[in-house]
Amino acid sequence: MDVISVIRTKRDRGELSPEQIDWVIDAYTRGVVADEQMSALAMAILLNGMNRTEIARWTAAMIASGERMNFDSLSRPTADKHSTGGVGDKITLPLAPLVAACGAAVPQLSGRGLGHTGGTLDKLESIPGWRALLSNEEMLHVLDTTGAVICAAGDGLAPADKKLYALRDVTGTVEAIPLIASSIMSKKIAEGTGSLVLDVKVGTGAFMKNIEDARELARTMVGLGTDSGVKTVALLTDMSTPLGLTAGNALEVRESVEVLAGGGPADVVELTIALAKEMLDAAGIKDADPAKALADGSAMDHWRRMIAAQGGDPDATLPVAREQHVVTAPESGVLTRLDAYGVGVAAWRLGAGRARKEDPVQAGAGVELHAKPGDTVTAGQPLMTLHTDTPEKFDYALASLAGTYDIAPAGTAFSATPIVLDRIA
Amino acid sequence: MDVISVIRTKRDRGELSPEQIDWVIDAYTRGVVADEQMSALAMAILLNGMNRTEIARWTAAMIASGERMNFDSLSRPTADKHSTGGVGDKITLPLAPLVAACGAAVPQLSGRGLGHTGGTLDKLESIPGWRALLSNEEMLHVLDTTGAVICAAGDGLAPADKKLYALRDVTGTVEAIPLIASSIMSKKIAEGTGSLVLDVKVGTGAFMKNIEDARELARTMVGLGTDSGVKTVALLTDMSTPLGLTAGNALEVRESVEVLAGGGPADVVELTIALAKEMLDAAGIKDADPAKALADGSAMDHWRRMIAAQGGDPDATLPVAREQHVVTAPESGVLTRLDAYGVGVAAWRLGAGRARKEDPVQAGAGVELHAKPGDTVTAGQPLMTLHTDTPEKFDYALASLAGTYDIAPAGTAFSATPIVLDRIA
Repeated sequence: MDVISVIRTKRDRGELSPEQIDWVIDAYTRGVVADEQMSALAMAILLNGMNRTEIARWTAAMIASGERMNFDSLSRPTADKHSTGGVGDKITLPLAPLVAACGAAVPQLSGRGLGHTGGTLDKLESIPGWRALLSNEEMLHVLDTTGAVICAAGDGLAPADKKLYALRDVTGTVEAIPLIASSIMSKKIAEGTGSLVLDVKVGTGAFMKNIEDARELARTMVGLGTDSGVKTVALLTDMSTPLGLTAGNALEVRESVEVLAGGGPADVVELTIALAKEMLDAAGIKDADPAKALADGSAMDHWRRMIAAQGGDPDATLPVAREQHVVTAPESGVLTRLDAYGVGVAAWRLGAGRARKEDPVQAGAGVELHAKPGDTVTAGQPLMTLHTDTPEKFDYALASLAGTYDIAPAGTAFSATPIVLDRIA
Repeated sequence: MDVISVIRTKRDRGELSPEQIDWVIDAYTRGVVADEQMSALAMAILLNGMNRTEIARWTAAMIASGERMNFDSLSRPTADKHSTGGVGDKITLPLAPLVAACGAAVPQLSGRGLGHTGGTLDKLESIPGWRALLSNEEMLHVLDTTGAVICAAGDGLAPADKKLYALRDVTGTVEAIPLIASSIMSKKIAEGTGSLVLDVKVGTGAFMKNIEDARELARTMVGLGTDSGVKTVALLTDMSTPLGLTAGNALEVRESVEVLAGGGPADVVELTIALAKEMLDAAGIKDADPAKALADGSAMDHWRRMIAAQGGDPDATLPVAREQHVVTAPESGVLTRLDAYGVGVAAWRLGAGRARKEDPVQAGAGVELHAKPGDTVTAGQPLMTLHTDTPEKFDYALASLAGTYDIAPAGTAFSATPIVLDRIA
């Protein structure tokens, strides 16, 4: 087997054989295939695609590059969720303890933010004492005792994916549906969950800008999960406007705690409950009522235990940014549009996100919204508050907000986009 | 400027701007753009193409990465030839002294063989004492005093191309017409020749297997040369069967000397004279008669002086391989096909070529043909003789000859393919 013949096969629009895929993934992981060879192959895959058979084998080869976890020792069925990432997407925070409160075990291996989308681990790290890095034994222990665990994926899980993802990031080959799908699913399948609900975001603030691409990605991932014996369902959900009223680490933790306390923004509550129902259904748990678990405090109990089990103090005061800047409405009327991407970039520039993997994030930085599309606003009222420890970035953040919202004359009809756009099973 | 935006532009079928091209070639040469980024860009170019404007700028940027030579001090017009490579293609050897004998100066920067096609420098190095590596001053001196020089291109010429070619070789991105054309033409334009004749080979033994691809490559290169002020003409020539009766280093030198002595195989003589006429015409030299210069010994005189000026002994005995194996005709009839690729691979396996840049070659190894398509053969007569210093390779070489020739019943009509298939100016 030689790498040039593998590259040529895909370059010339051929189908990669199982042997070619197994060999190239293994050889790349071992360093026998060089980065410049894999990036040429990744570009050929991006431009010429892979069929379902190839994607399944590619995913299996990435899983085989590392260890697989096993949750068979747990007494409860496992259910996991993965979001493709958006602005203000704190859903994992209330969702994991909520689903645990309803009877499933939720092993939630999460990532950090990169670019304009936030990362679940960054958000939770704003809680004093909370640790993202757990050994496999610690992870199983937290999961077993509290019903949910949110932590970083270990290095042993799909190392081929880790190496390939870093390569794609610097070679313009991220935007390939077969590679995105296999990257996500290799980790989720290796993690050993019994069921998985995918939250595929669509809109300006999401990776997928149009619903057709999102549908293709969702179908590909559902196929991969199903073929691997993981009960998998995908919801396509709106990311044209931020989720909830906050984008930023500690700001989003605070909002998540509001939801767990039975309050919080309607869209966050709606999506949390919709995803919880899918997870419980996929895990085979009947008769659970997520709305009740939010209202009766049982989800909050699970949150507090989960945070505490990972060293966090659920009662600690969350960090607040040193400086604030209020953006006011320039005129009165109906807010008809508030662009997720612009708000995400502003939060990122204020310090909530990172430009490079090794950059630190500010716990208190971000954007707080005082109005959402459909709301009536009055000239001069606060539209949003920007938070940062580095006020010299205000102008830079404000520049990204130019043109991100529209205010129409009072009385203009407004039809809200539903949160859940489609379901693929 | 950042490399990911450049890669994305081409990936998404956009046109690279002059600034993007200048930047990426310069940054790659300096090591700021990494190999894995350039290989992704090369694959995107291979699959999505470049237009004439982009190719011209790409070529100019590669020229600008190094030095340019200047032959203005010579009293004679310069004429160069480049072949895209084939099996038995020793044409440069008789051609350079022939064109010098007719009044042009021929600066012939040549390469070594890789894979099944031979390299001019490897062939000449079978002449005892002959040196391929000359300084720029030595090169000019040989050219000025003998009228022709065949030597290795210096490291200073288009270093970006040197680096990019090595990368393409290991990443499956060789077969991109814009990159092949700019690679060849950047070196030829930087070399400073006033006129250039391209011998674009077509057929099984050539890089271009079909005439449409060859035509596109020829048109692209002629356009690039013309736009840079180099008078450029291309001949498309047949490479479905080997040129002449030999493929191998010393074997081809011997055949070239026969041509210079007024003999030699008809196809080699025909192509040498056709290319000489084009070169003289492009250099603006009228009334020269290449056929006469072969017949009257003046081309041979130039050959002897050129070889001697580079340390070679034109009277030395050429190396002969230690072992021979004769392949005989299995039946009587007309030889209707003798495949160039099969013969090229056999010569390569016998030791005439190299698998890797750093491999040595055998001077005496190769294939000697005793019949060409159109010839009548008798069962049991020698069809070809294989030469090697490593007889353990005979079986391996013979395997590559299986199915490479057809013998039809005596009397079967045979129409020869012309040597020159098309001319593009």
